Amino acid sequence: MTEDSLLDKINSPSDIKKMTVSELSALSDEIREEIVESVSRNGGHLASNLGVVELTLAIHSVFDLPDDKIVWDVGHQSYTHKILTGRREQFSTLRTENGLSGFPKREESLYDCFDTGHSSTSVSAAFGIACANNILSDKHYTIAVIGDGALTGGMALEALNSAGKSKQNLIVILNDNKMSISKNVGSMAKHLTKLRIQPSYLDAKSRVQSRLNRIPGIGQGLAKMISSLKSWIRINFFGHQKNMFELLGFNYYGPLDGHDIVQLQTALKAAKRSRGPVILHVCTKKGKGYEYAEKKPNAFHGISAFDIETGEPKSSSKGYSAVFGEFMCNKARMDKRLCAITAAMATGTGLEEFSKKYKNRFFDVGIAEEHAVTFACGLAAGNALPVFAVYSTFLQRSYDQLLHDAALQGLHIVVAVDRAGIVGEDGETHQGIFDVAFMNTIPGITIYAPSSFQEMESMLDTALYKTNGVVAVRYPRGGELYIPDDYKYDEDSYTTFGNKTSDTVIVTYGRTFSYACEAVRSLSEKGIDVCILKLNRIKPVDVNAVKKCLNFRNCLFFEEGIKYGGVGENFGFMLYQRGFAGRYHLQAIEDYVHQAKCASALHKLGLDSEGIENTVLKIVNME
Amino acid sequence: MTEDSLLDKINSPSDIKKMTVSELSALSDEIREEIVESVSRNGGHLASNLGVVELTLAIHSVFDLPDDKIVWDVGHQSYTHKILTGRREQFSTLRTENGLSGFPKREESLYDCFDTGHSSTSVSAAFGIACANNILSDKHYTIAVIGDGALTGGMALEALNSAGKSKQNLIVILNDNKMSISKNVGSMAKHLTKLRIQPSYLDAKSRVQSRLNRIPGIGQGLAKMISSLKSWIRINFFGHQKNMFELLGFNYYGPLDGHDIVQLQTALKAAKRSRGPVILHVCTKKGKGYEYAEKKPNAFHGISAFDIETGEPKSSSKGYSAVFGEFMCNKARMDKRLCAITAAMATGTGLEEFSKKYKNRFFDVGIAEEHAVTFACGLAAGNALPVFAVYSTFLQRSYDQLLHDAALQGLHIVVAVDRAGIVGEDGETHQGIFDVAFMNTIPGITIYAPSSFQEMESMLDTALYKTNGVVAVRYPRGGELYIPDDYKYDEDSYTTFGNKTSDTVIVTYGRTFSYACEAVRSLSEKGIDVCILKLNRIKPVDVNAVKKCLNFRNCLFFEEGIKYGGVGENFGFMLYQRGFAGRYHLQAIEDYVHQAKCASALHKLGLDSEGIENTVLKIVNME
Repeated sequence: MTEDSLLDKINSPSDIKKMTVSELSALSDEIREEIVESVSRNGGHLASNLGVVELTLAIHSVFDLPDDKIVWDVGHQSYTHKILTGRREQFSTLRTENGLSGFPKREESLYDCFDTGHSSTSVSAAFGIACANNILSDKHYTIAVIGDGALTGGMALEALNSAGKSKQNLIVILNDNKMSISKNVGSMAKHLTKLRIQPSYLDAKSRVQSRLNRIPGIGQGLAKMISSLKSWIRINFFGHQKNMFELLGFNYYGPLDGHDIVQLQTALKAAKRSRGPVILHVCTKKGKGYEYAEKKPNAFHGISAFDIETGEPKSSSKGYSAVFGEFMCNKARMDKRLCAITAAMATGTGLEEFSKKYKNRFFDVGIAEEHAVTFACGLAAGNALPVFAVYSTFLQRSYDQLLHDAALQGLHIVVAVDRAGIVGEDGETHQGIFDVAFMNTIPGITIYAPSSFQEMESMLDTALYKTNGVVAVRYPRGGELYIPDDYKYDEDSYTTFGNKTSDTVIVTYGRTFSYACEAVRSLSEKGIDVCILKLNRIKPVDVNAVKKCLNFRNCLFFEEGIKYGGVGENFGFMLYQRGFAGRYHLQAIEDYVHQAKCASALHKLGLDSEGIENTVLKIVNME
Repeated sequence: MTEDSLLDKINSPSDIKKMTVSELSALSDEIREEIVESVSRNGGHLASNLGVVELTLAIHSVFDLPDDKIVWDVGHQSYTHKILTGRREQFSTLRTENGLSGFPKREESLYDCFDTGHSSTSVSAAFGIACANNILSDKHYTIAVIGDGALTGGMALEALNSAGKSKQNLIVILNDNKMSISKNVGSMAKHLTKLRIQPSYLDAKSRVQSRLNRIPGIGQGLAKMISSLKSWIRINFFGHQKNMFELLGFNYYGPLDGHDIVQLQTALKAAKRSRGPVILHVCTKKGKGYEYAEKKPNAFHGISAFDIETGEPKSSSKGYSAVFGEFMCNKARMDKRLCAITAAMATGTGLEEFSKKYKNRFFDVGIAEEHAVTFACGLAAGNALPVFAVYSTFLQRSYDQLLHDAALQGLHIVVAVDRAGIVGEDGETHQGIFDVAFMNTIPGITIYAPSSFQEMESMLDTALYKTNGVVAVRYPRGGELYIPDDYKYDEDSYTTFGNKTSDTVIVTYGRTFSYACEAVRSLSEKGIDVCILKLNRIKPVDVNAVKKCLNFRNCLFFEEGIKYGGVGENFGFMLYQRGFAGRYHLQAIEDYVHQAKCASALHKLGLDSEGIENTVLKIVNME
C-alpha cells in the first residue's frame, strides 16, 4: 500500500459513503490487490471475490449496515465486505487457524448477519429476516446476494416462490457471472444469458419514450427506429415480455454492469424505493482485475496458495479425485451403461476428462444434490449404471433422496463421496464428517472406505459390479498417505494388520489407517505391540470383525467422523452386546470442526499418528 | 357394478385402446364409483384420485405401458392406474396389511416403474429414465405426472432446470388442481392461475389465424375482434408471452381440460410427436364426481374411512396436532414474536386456526421443507421466535438445513415434529421413524418426546422459552394413550416410574411409555415388578438417567424408531461405557416398515404392550 492508501482511511463502512466515485474506483483497485496478495499466500476463493468488489462497495455506500442486513449466498465472496467492516487488520489471517473465516460468521462481526457456506440458502434466510423485521416493525432493508449458479439449487427456487408473492421489502441481488463453480448449466443459465444481452430494463416505458423523442436523431438508422417503435408498441399494448423473476412476482432491474459503481448505486437506490420483493440482475466478471483468474475463473474458484506472477499453484500432487476420474474413464470405455453425475463439481470431483470423452453419459445437473440422487435412481430404474460424485458435505442435501428414493427401492446407484473427513481451511461448513453417521441410519446401504488409491479402485469396482442397492465409496481430500510395505489389501470386509497376539487392537478405517500404522510403528519401537483391525466396509459392519476384537483386552476405535451414530459407537455397542469386558475407547469427533490446516485439525482431534500413539500409551499405561 | 360393467372387460391396459370415447367416459364413472366405495371403507387419498380418472385413461389409451414409463409424483393419485393395470381384484385390499399399496410400487406391478410417496421427485426420476433410454437406444416415452403443489418443491424445480435444456423426449404432465394439499401457495401458483385463464395455446399462430378468418362472424363482438387482432399482432411481431415452463426450455401445451378425454388424447399425441421436453398443462378438479370431495377437497385429501352418503368421517377424536394448534394460538396471543411455519400442511399439523388468527405470523411456504428450515433460521436471526411444524418423514428433506444453517449457528428455532413414529396405512414412505436418528447426528440439537398432551404443552413451552438453539418436540399421529393415574410428569429430563428396587428396568420415550405402563401393570399382576425409566429429553441423553440404570440387572430399551444411530444404541453404549455388566436388550426398528394399521405394525415390531411384556418375560425367565 502507498502512503495515499484509501483503505487506510476506512474505519467503518460509513466512511465509504463519503467517498467520490473516483475514490471508490481507486479503492476497488486497492482491495483487489489486497485480496490477490492474501489468497496467493493462504489460498481461498479468488475469482468470486474479485468479481464483486464494486458491488460490495456500492451496497455499503447505499445501505446502512449493520442495521440493514446482507446475506451472502455461499459466502465465499465476502472478502471485500470483511475488509470494509473492520476486519482488514486480520485479513492476512484469513482461513488460518484462529484467523478470519473464509465465510461470513455471526461470531466474527456484527456486520455478518447470517452464516453461509453451502449454496442457495441466502434468499430463504434473507426473506426470514425481512419477515421478522415486518413482525417487529423494523423498517430496515434486507439483501440477499446470490450467484447465478446458486439459482440452480432447489431451495433458492423454493424461496423465490415463497418470497415472490409476498409484499416484503426483500432485495435479491443476482450476481450473474455465468458460472456456478464450473460453467453454469441448465435452463436457468440459458435464460440468464438471454437477459444479459437485452437492453437494461430499469423503467422501460420512460426509456422507450425518451428514445422515441430522439427519433429521428442524428446517426440513428431505420432499424433502431423500428426497434424502438416495436418496443413502444409492445410495452404499451402488451406489456413487456416478462422474464422468469417477474413471473415469480419480483420487480426486476437489470441487467446492470457489475463493475460500474454509479449504475449499481442508481439501481440500489431504486430498489430501496421499490415496494415488495425486487431482483437486481448484476453482471460481473469472475476474477475481474487479475489476469490469470479472468482467463481461468474455474481454476481460481477455490484454490491453494499460488504464485502471483505466474498464477501457478505452489504445490500439486495426484489426489483421490484424479484417480477416481481415471477409473471412471477406464470403466466407461468398457461399460456402455456407466454414467457420471455431478452437481456443478466436474473439476473438483475429477470428472472433467469423463465429461469430454463421454458427453452423453455425463450429467452436470447444477447445484442440485437432491435432484442428482433421484435422477441417478431414474437412470438405474432405466437400467443404466449411475455414479454420483459429490463432496461429503454437500451429500447432506440428499439425505431424504437416499432414504426414500434410492435405498427404499433398492436401486443400484453408486455414490462416490469425495472430501470425506476433515477438509481444512474451509472450516465447519465444509468438513465431511457427517456422511457416515447419516448414511448409517438408512437401511440397506453399503459403505466402503479405502485407505489407498489401489483400494479405492478395487472398492469402486466392487461397488459397481459386486454389490446391490445403494453403495457409497468415501475417500478424503488430497492424496495417499503412508501405507506399510507389508500391508496387503485382501478385498475382504476387514483386514487385520500387525501383531494379532497383542493385548490391544486399534480399529479404524479410511485414511486414519495410515496414521494408525505410523503410530503402531512408533509404538513398536517403544516395545509396545499393537494390532490394527481396518474396516474396509464400514456399513454394514462385519460381525466377524467385531468378534475378532473380543480377543483383545483393549479395543481403541479411531474415527474421523462425528461420534453420534458413527461406526465407532455402532462397533462398540456390538462388541459389548457380545460380552466384551475389556476397555473400549472411542476417539471420534464430537462437534463441528473449526478451520485449520488438515494436519492441525486432526492433531487437535487426536486423530493423527501422534494422537493415536498417545491414546494407546495412556490406555496401556492404565493397566 | 351392473352386468354391462366396462371395467369387467379390461384385462390389461391394451383393452382401453379399443374403447370409444363414450365408452371411456362411461368407464370413468365406473372407476369413480369403485374408488369412492373402496376409500370410504379403508381410507386413503380420495380427492386427488377422482381428479385424474380421465387423464389416466387418456394416458393409457395413447401410450404403451409398461414399455412407455409413467412416474406418478407423490403417487397417491395412482388408483385408476392400479385398477387398469391388473390390480382391480385386489383393489379392495388397498392400504391394508399385505394388500395393495396406496402408492406406486415396483414390487407390485411391472406397470409401476418408480416408487413414490414424497413430493416433487417425479421429474428427476422420469428424466433419469429418459436419459437411460437414450443411452441404451430405447425409443420409448417417459412421462412424469406432477401436481401444481409439487412444483413448489425445490427438487422438482432443479429437475425442470436440468431437463429443460436437454434434448430428451420427456413428457411432464402438470396436473393443475390449484391445490397442493391445502390451497397452493406462492408465485408459481399465481402464475398457473394466470395460465389457466388464457386461451389454450396448442398452436397459437394457426389458432389466431383461424379466428381471424372468422371475423366478423355471427355473434362476435368488437371486443373479441380486437383481442384477436392483438393476439395476432403480438404473436406475429413479438412472439407470444412465454410462460415459466417455456422460459425453462419446455414446449408448452395447454391449458387443457383434464376431464375432456378427446382433448387430452389430442394433446398427448402432439406431445409424442414433439421433440425435446414437453409440458402438458392439464387442469383438473380435485374430488371430481363426488360431491362432498369436490366441495371440500382438502378434507378429502388423505382421509380415514367415511360414510359415503354423508361424507362424514367414521371416527374422530382429538389428537396431538389439534393440541399443538391450540397451544400455538394461546402463546401467540401473549408473545408477538411467535411465528408458525408449515410446508403445505396447515390442516394436518393443526395450524388452521393460527393461520386465520395470526395471518402475518403464519407462513405456508409450499412443499418446501429445505426452505422452511432456513427461512425459520432467518426469522430467528431477525429476533422472531419461529416454530416449524412438519411431519417427521418430510423433515428428512431438511437434514442439511438443520445441520448447516440452524444448529451450526445455534439459532433458536423450534421444530414441532408431527407424525413421529409409525403412521400406519401410508406405509414405508410415510413412517416417522428416522427423525431421531438423523437429528442425533447433529451437534447441539435438543429433542423432547412427550407421552401425553400435557407433557407436549409443557415441553413446547420449555422448547420455546427455556432451551437454546435448535429444539425439536416430537409427537405421534393420533391422540393420547394410557397414562396411569399415579404417574406425574415432573419436567425433569427423565422420570422413573414403578418399583425402583426391581431387577429390571424398561427405558423408553414418547408414546411407547403408555404401552410400557400397560405391560408393567400386567406383569405386576403376574407378580413381576418392573421399573420404567422414561426419557423426556432424548437428546442429549441425561448421564444421570444412564447411571440410574447401572443399578438394575436387566435394562430393556424400547424404541419406536430406527435402531441405527437411535437413542437406544446411544443409551446402551453409554451404559456399557460406565461399566454396566447386566443384560441390555434393545428393541427398535431395523428396516423400513410396511403398511398396516398402526396397532398391527407396532405389534409385529414388538413395540406394543404385549410385545414389551413378552420381551420382559423372556429376559426375566432367562435368569
